[in-house]
Amino acid sequence: MNNTVYVGNKGVMNYVLAVITQFNTENADKVRIKARGRAISRAVDVEEMVRNRFLPDIKVEEINLGTDKVKNEDGKDVNISTIEIVLSK
Amino acid sequence: MNNTVYVGNKGVMNYVLAVITQFNTENADKVRIKARGRAISRAVDVEEMVRNRFLPDIKVEEINLGTDKVKNEDGKDVNISTIEIVLSK
Repeated sequence: MNNTVYVGNKGVMNYVLAVITQFNTENADKVRIKARGRAISRAVDVEEMVRNRFLPDIKVEEINLGTDKVKNEDGKDVNISTIEIVLSK
Repeated sequence: MNNTVYVGNKGVMNYVLAVITQFNTENADKVRIKARGRAISRAVDVEEMVRNRFLPDIKVEEINLGTDKVKNEDGKDVNISTIEIVLSK
């Protein structure tokens, strides 16, 4: 079972609902919120909204920061920062 | 002594140099990188660049996520996400 929510450019509530669904409908014990680049700020918004407004008993178990290498449109390697926020019951 | 670097809208290297200066010139054992809202992504870029390119022995000691209430231009309270990344020698 894949309990990872990838945060991209959609509205925050899309990802908030995805996380809530994992915990409630899929009965997950852990959900990983992952994002890269500018979406990192939105990933933090998702975590804060889930915990402050919807699921106050959920804890932040772990936060991992990293760097991915991706190819830009010119085919050059560029570094992009990543975040993984692990939420648990 | 204030070892906090607030990350805003300037280029990443400004903040990277501020962190390096705290560790090297000011001889800090710990430096806190703080940011709010969209600058959160840039704060992660700063941490990754400091550790991957300049100071490989520095560790991420702690990462704290939170929410601040700020007034928007209409005088209404809005929530804004925050990050604090604590780096240590």
